[in-house]
Amino acid sequence: MTETRPLTRFGVKPLAALTRRLADVAGGRAEPDLVITGARVLSVYSERILPEREVWITQGRIAAVKPAGSHKGGAPRYDAGGGLLGPGLVDPHLHIESSMVTACAYAEAALLNGTTTIVCDSHEIGNVLDAQGIAWMLEDARAAALNIYLTVPSTVPATSAALETAGGDLTPDKIAALFDAWPEAIGLGEKMDFVAVVEGDPRAHAILRAALERGRPVSGHIYGRDFVSAYAASGVTDTHEAIDRDIADDLLEAGLWIYLRGGPPTTPWHSLPGAIGTVTDCGAAWKRVCVCTDDRDADDLLTYGLDYVVREAVRHGVPKPAAWAIGSLHPATRYGLDGEIGGFGGGRRADLVLLDDDLVPQATWYGGELVVENRRITPRLEEALSRPYRYPAPAYATLRSPEPMPALVPGLPAGPCIANAIRTTLPGIELSHERVALDPGPDWAATLSAHDLCHVAVVERHGLRGSVAHGLLRAFGLRHGAVASSVGHDSHNLVVAGLNEADMRVALEAIRAHQGGVCVVADGSVVAMVPLPVAGLLSDQRVGVVAAEMRHLKAAWAEAGCRIPYMGFNLIPLSVIPEIRLTDRGLVLVPEMRLVPLFEPA
Amino acid sequence: MTETRPLTRFGVKPLAALTRRLADVAGGRAEPDLVITGARVLSVYSERILPEREVWITQGRIAAVKPAGSHKGGAPRYDAGGGLLGPGLVDPHLHIESSMVTACAYAEAALLNGTTTIVCDSHEIGNVLDAQGIAWMLEDARAAALNIYLTVPSTVPATSAALETAGGDLTPDKIAALFDAWPEAIGLGEKMDFVAVVEGDPRAHAILRAALERGRPVSGHIYGRDFVSAYAASGVTDTHEAIDRDIADDLLEAGLWIYLRGGPPTTPWHSLPGAIGTVTDCGAAWKRVCVCTDDRDADDLLTYGLDYVVREAVRHGVPKPAAWAIGSLHPATRYGLDGEIGGFGGGRRADLVLLDDDLVPQATWYGGELVVENRRITPRLEEALSRPYRYPAPAYATLRSPEPMPALVPGLPAGPCIANAIRTTLPGIELSHERVALDPGPDWAATLSAHDLCHVAVVERHGLRGSVAHGLLRAFGLRHGAVASSVGHDSHNLVVAGLNEADMRVALEAIRAHQGGVCVVADGSVVAMVPLPVAGLLSDQRVGVVAAEMRHLKAAWAEAGCRIPYMGFNLIPLSVIPEIRLTDRGLVLVPEMRLVPLFEPA
Repeated sequence: MTETRPLTRFGVKPLAALTRRLADVAGGRAEPDLVITGARVLSVYSERILPEREVWITQGRIAAVKPAGSHKGGAPRYDAGGGLLGPGLVDPHLHIESSMVTACAYAEAALLNGTTTIVCDSHEIGNVLDAQGIAWMLEDARAAALNIYLTVPSTVPATSAALETAGGDLTPDKIAALFDAWPEAIGLGEKMDFVAVVEGDPRAHAILRAALERGRPVSGHIYGRDFVSAYAASGVTDTHEAIDRDIADDLLEAGLWIYLRGGPPTTPWHSLPGAIGTVTDCGAAWKRVCVCTDDRDADDLLTYGLDYVVREAVRHGVPKPAAWAIGSLHPATRYGLDGEIGGFGGGRRADLVLLDDDLVPQATWYGGELVVENRRITPRLEEALSRPYRYPAPAYATLRSPEPMPALVPGLPAGPCIANAIRTTLPGIELSHERVALDPGPDWAATLSAHDLCHVAVVERHGLRGSVAHGLLRAFGLRHGAVASSVGHDSHNLVVAGLNEADMRVALEAIRAHQGGVCVVADGSVVAMVPLPVAGLLSDQRVGVVAAEMRHLKAAWAEAGCRIPYMGFNLIPLSVIPEIRLTDRGLVLVPEMRLVPLFEPA
Repeated sequence: MTETRPLTRFGVKPLAALTRRLADVAGGRAEPDLVITGARVLSVYSERILPEREVWITQGRIAAVKPAGSHKGGAPRYDAGGGLLGPGLVDPHLHIESSMVTACAYAEAALLNGTTTIVCDSHEIGNVLDAQGIAWMLEDARAAALNIYLTVPSTVPATSAALETAGGDLTPDKIAALFDAWPEAIGLGEKMDFVAVVEGDPRAHAILRAALERGRPVSGHIYGRDFVSAYAASGVTDTHEAIDRDIADDLLEAGLWIYLRGGPPTTPWHSLPGAIGTVTDCGAAWKRVCVCTDDRDADDLLTYGLDYVVREAVRHGVPKPAAWAIGSLHPATRYGLDGEIGGFGGGRRADLVLLDDDLVPQATWYGGELVVENRRITPRLEEALSRPYRYPAPAYATLRSPEPMPALVPGLPAGPCIANAIRTTLPGIELSHERVALDPGPDWAATLSAHDLCHVAVVERHGLRGSVAHGLLRAFGLRHGAVASSVGHDSHNLVVAGLNEADMRVALEAIRAHQGGVCVVADGSVVAMVPLPVAGLLSDQRVGVVAAEMRHLKAAWAEAGCRIPYMGFNLIPLSVIPEIRLTDRGLVLVPEMRLVPLFEPA
């Protein structure tokens, strides 16, 4: 019977329609569809481990949690073998686009990681396709084997048309319309222009108002303790950017929920170890602390899921049941979803994870259906994944770069001058502004080599301006050829770096042929490519396929000598992070927010 | 400037309209209206006490919490003198009618107790005046100097027309209409017919559905561990009736928020000491624990407010900041109001309480305005209390008892028989069924005296049936005269007990003259009366007046010899509590829910 339900959020009827059925099963007047018995329960309500329990499930919801062995009827049983049973994890903040897969494909990785609900902020596709792109991703989300809620992108474009050309412009009215059209739009996405917010910028506050007057909470993105008070006063009630215990402490006291962000341990995404100090060093209660992933490429997604972040919290001293709670009940509570998900309370969705004692997921039930067993997806999920949402044709035709392609490198200066170069620094988030005394050689090849430079260009690709801007990267390390990406945050123009224009053109041509992608080119040939045909941001393949492509790309990327990872490379146009950025409009100094020429008189 | 704002919930503009102003003040570009400095802050977010802080307030909201002395401008200051500053308390479950005052009058007592928000369940007025009475009380609530939210009464009438005659009948459709008309209707009130719920009764579940499909949480009322699973599975997510640690533990694990109910320590309302064992004995986290008052007469309200219940939690071992949190942030979070109230986060309402080190409120600010200082109300509040909401004329004309009044005592049996008597037991909630072998004397006076009995009658007063039912109370202790009340739970028919019909008639006539009340009569004269002209339930006087009347009534009640308090007396018609009750339809056996005659053959 359960097999006929769609394996989506909507495959489980609303609680309002099932209360009598649930009472009948809990009261012993009807048989459960499934009894998971012989489990220790990770109670996220009381933060204890309850021994020897069983869970009665009907119609995809939890009818009762009872002592193991209570059920005497003939319902199908699953013996948990004494394993730990927890509610499915709830990721309160992430961008699906960072994983370069569709929402339907993302579900596979999430379920393998024990995550059954995510709150996504689809601001990347919003920057390319405006509200229409967000709507398509919501259709994708509704078709996924995962509970997917949205925080409506709040900061599209990231800056302004004077500094970059974006495909999207989410005005307060468009944001209001998204809230009114999509019930799963449960909050406003991270308000990234925090300086504008604290300074009282009218558009920023009109957007806050659109959310607040609809009773939707506002997510934050903030650096700097000095800004905390005014940002909180503006109505922001969470943040995932706390990088140390002091700002985490300030934010918590200012009334914000703290999302501890975890990720690959060598990257800036792994800010949990610093921020968790508010609890472990400063003694704050953790009841308003959550964990999140934020950005994860398809490869890392399988290794560093939200379950990994929970385990990191345990490693830093949070007891296991509490750590599981900050990954499930707390985010559910933050968004008012704790009557639906996030714990084993009566009537909640039967989204469950069976774990070993190290909190590594072994099996996952989604809406009462077994979708992961022995750390592998089941045939039931395999079947659902074979019928994903398909984005409509216009989503596959978003790469409108200028034809013919203008020059990707500037003319060689006639004599010595100053070049406003972009110096790469690890881990790749911030970029330094370096005024390089340029002494041109006979050609660009000699000149680049002599100054540890390579070309970089950003090409507008929304068919709006046809603009191209040139820059120079210092200490990028590229040994040959070119690298390029259609994921140029946040406007997602094309960004290409190379030692010669020919390879740069090959790279952009390859990306155009796929309507999007990230690639490495050497000697006129593409040596690695991740095609991203949907909005130039997403693959339409399964997550395992994209993860394999990513691993190949990363290897080629390293082989080419690039010192910063491709994710950092994608940030070269993101003109809200210090110190210098290149957009399709030119070189932008941050935070002055002004354009500078590439070359100046010496 | 602030003086021109009405001292109501609406005197503070919505956060959505104030974000720019708040950012300006927090950012130092505009002056606060008020700075409360020199305080230690009870942080309910982190459960710590923060030393030397100050709170910047503008337009009734909190702009920032800063180190004391941060503000350098000329804004008005209030020196907290090193006292503890906490957010105003939030009472998640109570019935205003129990206090026999209007919502506007209730506010005075609440603010004296440091309570600035309440969630009321107005099911008493609903039983008298149906949805119209609830609407009037909501108008009253909107005019009050208090944040008043509603959980829509879910169980009106308490039983059925076969067993009692009520003035209200809140069908699923009427409940849905209340949700749709009143945004402050934030949940469904306690679903008292828990047996019907767990057994799948269609009307009960249609009411649950009306709430759940609107995203409104459902409050509970349940006794008995056996019922917990099915009740939770039906979508109920809080309870205030946990009487010991074991059922509290069960309910917490079933996903319910636990409201620890406190009250006068000798009464059944003080169930906190038992239920708190889930935390203090069983080690559950307290993040989903709240405190509440439920029912409090006007007299006790001033002594045993929610602040008292918080102090009781401290006395049982909860640290002070956590105890204050379970009285403020936790209930706010339970109802999704934690962005508005319940803590000192940016943008929240400036509802604050200054406390001594024993957590006794000394001063209260409501929407940034000082309403209590040195434990007395300020002129600002005095002025607001002088202009309360006035209920419309029909609310003052609800006492439609039959005219002429039928006989209030039965005919004296001709010979020996069995009387199905109601035996009173302390503390007055439960009543025992006693089959008394009645040997009639020459008249009722001799017969009552010989058997330790007195008369009791319930008179229908909604003008619907004109019915009167007779009973006999055993061991009530009444030495002379009669006592009577128009607060006869839950249908609020008239209940009168007496040793002679003449005094019983005097009592009912006095109540009719006031259109409601509770009184004591001796020798044909009223010796104490609390007039309750609004719906026969509420006084329209200030809370201090009603408290004084109550104290006088309680003294007369004790003087008359009554063994159970008047609150227990009011429960005589409440045919959902064991073992025997008297409604206007007759004697009801509970839980069999059937009528029995007063006299049976011996």
